This record gives sequence, C-alpha cells and structure tokens, in this order.
Amino acid sequence: MRIAVIPGDGIGGEVVPAVLPALELLGEHFGLDLSYRIFDWGAERWLAERVGLPPDALDLLASDYPTILLGALGDPRIPDMAHGRDILLGLRRGLDLYVNHRPFTPRGSDRAIALFRENTQGLYAGVGGTVSHGRHPAVAIDECVYTRETVEKFLRYCLRTLSESGRERVTLVHKSNAVPHTGRLWQEVFRAELARFPKLVGNEEYVDSFCYHLVRDPSPYDGVVASNLFGDIISDIGAALMGGLGLAASASVCPETGCALFEPVHGSAPDIAGRGIANPYAAATAVALMLDHLGHLPAAASLRRALAAAARTDSATPDLGGHGTTGTFMAEVMTRLEKN
Amino acid sequence: MRIAVIPGDGIGGEVVPAVLPALELLGEHFGLDLSYRIFDWGAERWLAERVGLPPDALDLLASDYPTILLGALGDPRIPDMAHGRDILLGLRRGLDLYVNHRPFTPRGSDRAIALFRENTQGLYAGVGGTVSHGRHPAVAIDECVYTRETVEKFLRYCLRTLSESGRERVTLVHKSNAVPHTGRLWQEVFRAELARFPKLVGNEEYVDSFCYHLVRDPSPYDGVVASNLFGDIISDIGAALMGGLGLAASASVCPETGCALFEPVHGSAPDIAGRGIANPYAAATAVALMLDHLGHLPAAASLRRALAAAARTDSATPDLGGHGTTGTFMAEVMTRLEKN
Ligand SMILES: CC(C)[C@H](C(=O)O)[C@@H](O)C(=O)O
Ligand SMILES: CC(C)[C@H](C(=O)O)[C@@H](O)C(=O)O
Repeated sequence: MRIAVIPGDGIGGEVVPAVLPALELLGEHFGLDLSYRIFDWGAERWLAERVGLPPDALDLLASDYPTILLGALGDPRIPDMAHGRDILLGLRRGLDLYVNHRPFTPRGSDRAIALFRENTQGLYAGVGGTVSHGRHPAVAIDECVYTRETVEKFLRYCLRTLSESGRERVTLVHKSNAVPHTGRLWQEVFRAELARFPKLVGNEEYVDSFCYHLVRDPSPYDGVVASNLFGDIISDIGAALMGGLGLAASASVCPETGCALFEPVHGSAPDIAGRGIANPYAAATAVALMLDHLGHLPAAASLRRALAAAARTDSATPDLGGHGTTGTFMAEVMTRLEKN
Repeated sequence: MRIAVIPGDGIGGEVVPAVLPALELLGEHFGLDLSYRIFDWGAERWLAERVGLPPDALDLLASDYPTILLGALGDPRIPDMAHGRDILLGLRRGLDLYVNHRPFTPRGSDRAIALFRENTQGLYAGVGGTVSHGRHPAVAIDECVYTRETVEKFLRYCLRTLSESGRERVTLVHKSNAVPHTGRLWQEVFRAELARFPKLVGNEEYVDSFCYHLVRDPSPYDGVVASNLFGDIISDIGAALMGGLGLAASASVCPETGCALFEPVHGSAPDIAGRGIANPYAAATAVALMLDHLGHLPAAASLRRALAAAARTDSATPDLGGHGTTGTFMAEVMTRLEKN
C-alpha cells in the first residue's frame, strides 16, 4: 500500500512528519505492507514556480498513490489560499473524492456524529465570473451547481454506510426555502434513496435551523448529510463542539476507485508554526481514518487508544491541557504503541 | 406613523396580537401618533387563493405603510414555505430592504454583537434553474449573484452605523477561498469602504472559521457584516448562543426610503401553535427595534426594561424559566409599562 504524503504548509510540515513514525510502527506490529512518498506541494513551490498541483499529479496519484495524507495548506503571503485551492480542491475534484467524512464527537457525548459532506460540486464547482465596468467589477456570480448523478451516488453511499454501521437516523441539511433548485434536487434524491434503506429514519432540516439546534443540543443527531458549503460550515461547528480543531480529521473518498485523501481539519496555523508546539492529534486521527479505510481496523483502534491515553498526560500539548510539545506528545503515543 | 401588521402563520397569529396592546400603550405614554392595519397574508390565503404577496402590496406598503411588523410564516401543509418565500423574500427584495440587522447578546455577555446581513441578493437573488432529462432533473443551479452597487451601499451603511454607534471592530465573513468571485467583490468593497472610517478596525474571516470561533468564544466580536446566506446561518447560531430563538428579533431596512420590516427570528412553530404558550419576547423585541428605527428611543427603552423584568417573573413562558403563557407574560409587561 503506497501512500502519498503531502505535509504542505505551516504546522502541516510539523505534524505530518511527527505522526509518520507511528504509522511505520503500526505497519511493523500489524504486518502491513506500507510505503510512502513525500510530495513538496505547497506555498513554497507556488511562490517559487507558481505550481500548485503539478500537471501530472492526478495521473500519478490515481495510478500509484491512491491513498493520500495531507497536512495543511495556507500561507499568509498568498491571498485567499490560491495555491491551497489549486491543490486541495484540485485533488478533491480531480480524483472525484466526492464523499467527505468528518465525524465529530461533541464534548460530553460518547458517540460521534457521522457527518458526510459532498466534496466536489455545489458552490465549489468552480463555475462563475465577474462582469466589469471599466476597471471595476459590477456584478459577481458564483454558481451552485449539482448534478443528479453526483447527488445520487453521494447520498446512496452515505445512506448505505450509515445503515451498515447501525446508525438509525439521518438528517439532510438543505436550504430549499431560499435556494430552491439545488435544494429540491437534494430533497428529491434523498427521499428516493432513503426508501432503499428501511431501517434508517430520515429527516430534513434547513441549514440555519440545523446549526441552531446543533449548537444548542447535538445529542439528537446521528448521521448528517450535507452539500459542500453547508458541510464545510457544519464540520467547523462540530469541531467547536468537540472542544477544538486540534482533534478533528476528515477523509475524502471516491468509493468507486478507492482513491482517498486524509487530513486534519485544522489549517496551517502560521501563528504557531515553527515552534514545535502544534498538536499532532488531528493528523494522527487522519492516519487512523486512513487505516480504517484500508481495512486495518485493529491498527486504527490501537492508534486511537494510544492517542486518547497520551492526550490525558502532561506530555500533551497545551491545547489538550498538558505542558508538552508536538515531540513529547508523539513520544508518549509511541511508548504506548510499543507496549501494545 | 402607519404600520402594516402581518401576523402570518402559526404562533405569528398569537404573539403579534399579544404585543400590539403594548405598542398602543407606549403610543399613549410617549404621545406617538401610531396607527396600524392588519394584513391577512399567509398560509390560509395561499391555500385558498394561491395568493402570497398580493400584486398591489408593494406599492401600497411603499406609499402608505413603510413600517411593517411581521409575525412568522410557515405551514406544514405548504412544502418548503412557498408562500413564505413569496411574501417574505418578496417584501425584502421588492422594497429593497437590503440591510438586515440582527443583534444578539451571547449568554454571559453584557454587550450585543451587531450582526448585519445583506438581505436581497447572493443565493437569495432568485436566479437559477434545472436542466431535465425526461422527467428527471439532471442538473440544478442556484446562482449567488452580487452587484457592486448593493454590496457598496450595504457595507457603507453598516460601517457608518457601526462607527457612529461607537463600535470599534468589524468582521467581514466571507468564503473567498472557495467561492471566489462574490467573495473577492465583498473583500474589495469592504477594504475600500473601511478606509473611510478610520476609527473602525476591520478584519476578514472565512465563514467556516468564523462559525468555529463564534461558537467557542463570541467575546472578541463586535460588528459583523455578511452576505445573505452566511448572515442567515450566523444569526441562528447567534440565537443559540443567546439561549434561544425566543429572544431574537430582526430589522430589515432600506435606508434610502426608510421602509423597514421588523420580525421575530423564530418561525411559526406549528408544534406549539394554538395553545397560547408561545413566547412573545422576540415579537416584542421586534416592536422595540421598530420604535428605535422610528426614532422613539425612550419608548423602545421602556419596552425593553419591561420585557427584561417580566422575563424574570414566574409569569414568563416556560422557555424563559417561568410557568406562564403568552397572555400572562404580556400582562406582566403591561403592568410594568403602566407603572412607568
Ligand atoms: C481551505 C478550504 C478551501 C477548505 C474548504 O472550504 O473546503 C477547508 O475549509 C476545508 O474544510 O477543508
Ligand atoms: C424563511 C427563510 C426564507 C428565511 C431566510 O432564510 O432568510 C429565514 O430563515 C430568516 O432568517 O429570516
């Protein structure tokens, strides 16, 4: 199993190298045939050569490295993450990673909410433009575009996964009262697909009302399916309810090809980059999601146990309540993995 | 001053009549020349005659009733609030009520966050459609459309209001890393307008990151400006941080014409409608916003004091911690207003 590792920018370049030894150790323990190759895509290359995702990248990944571990992208020198958009949205769309799975466990709950976000279309379709009068933009348009095909394969995959994993309820988050065309397409397909999974109870909620209820009390939610932008916003609210971005990771998957990208939800955090204090928990959780995806459930479980235990020690980073660094935290994780 | 009163559906028809006597009493006390006319627009008329906003409504309101008090719209018999969209979005767009002011005071804070939402364009512009193959939709599109003119007049109004009311910071919420055309238009105009208000410190935040930070700790935020959909979502999160939709109200204004619409943020709540237990606090707060807008600051302040005091009594509705009803709560408010 060959993994493409893209550390990326800022703390991405710290947490990703920090978690790789854990991956290697798990590989030895569980007899997994792992290898990886590091790709230097990110801000530095963009600034030097204006290259985000190199032209041959998608072909290379699809054929040789269908499993991708990404750190973080974002650099204060590059407005609005132009390079990050090129790389991250390029990978999501180019490899058709249309399912983004962002589970989150609200503080005080013992069960994760299974959030699935469509990852390639909607307002992220890249369709739009600007009409100028002279040097000034007069009208700007971004189009939210959804094909039935993508909504259908996305929802079918989500509902099957939820149903097979014993989930009972699934909520469609939409805004068809104000954004009617894509909203109705989602509702129609949701209702049709739901009929195939008689054990799942479905409900539909407007995105504003959903966010209101999620913040007040997340406990009634179980599975949640949402379009690209709504899923983006919900996953950050989920991270806040979890107690911080330091813990959240996500998997972007194309179920048909098996291509998949794993990443912490946090950004490149330029404010703390370079000081060795970034919390590697989310990056390690991305590795656990990757092991799940590859079918190595015992290895994933072992990593999660070690992480949870290490997070309770003083070696954990300050955001977890410890006094440690990226290094001391991962050393604690390694000690636990070695004992296993 | 002539007010159009639209009770609307569900609890709208309970809370609006409940707060009108308070408005009348304030009118007497403060010598305001108030009159109102009730309009029966809502679900019943839609179901009977397929009329949402009647054809002559906009002209009538613009000329004779530029101040509007709306209860709530929404009825389980009408999918996706088709009538509510027709009436509410029809009023917002038709009267060019492009500024939606939704202040919220997070629990534990003593200062409201001043949220301004653009109210007529973006994904609410009503532009889009569906391409069908046979009987099935194949591609659905909703367009997010912004004109520079609207963004400019909106932001200029917000920044002036924030600056004049002594606010120090203003955050632009956007998503230009994924939704670049409208995102950049907003950023460009925001930066240009900000230069006119040297006392305001501006910052810009991606909507996902903004929601994350808002849920974790709203205290750093002061003024917030957002496009239509983001403002919709943020105001519901704001209501959750306030402790419930029962308290939040909003003002939709066209600064040039003075036309304005005031409403509680809560919906028609069909689950509790008809039982006399709906909390009229938000509808009364909408009246206070209306009095502010009309320049009757002492009357608005008097109403707010009476509301705050009544909310702490046992006559308040259960969601406020009391054992009362719509009627007992407003009776408590009236007693306090009479004593003033
Ligand atoms: C960086 C940005 C384009 C991206 C997104 O909006 O999808 C990020 O917020 C995420 O959630 O992965
Ligand atoms: C009812 C709906 C169309 C409306 C909106 O999205 O603007 C509501 O949620 C609001 O916030 O006033």
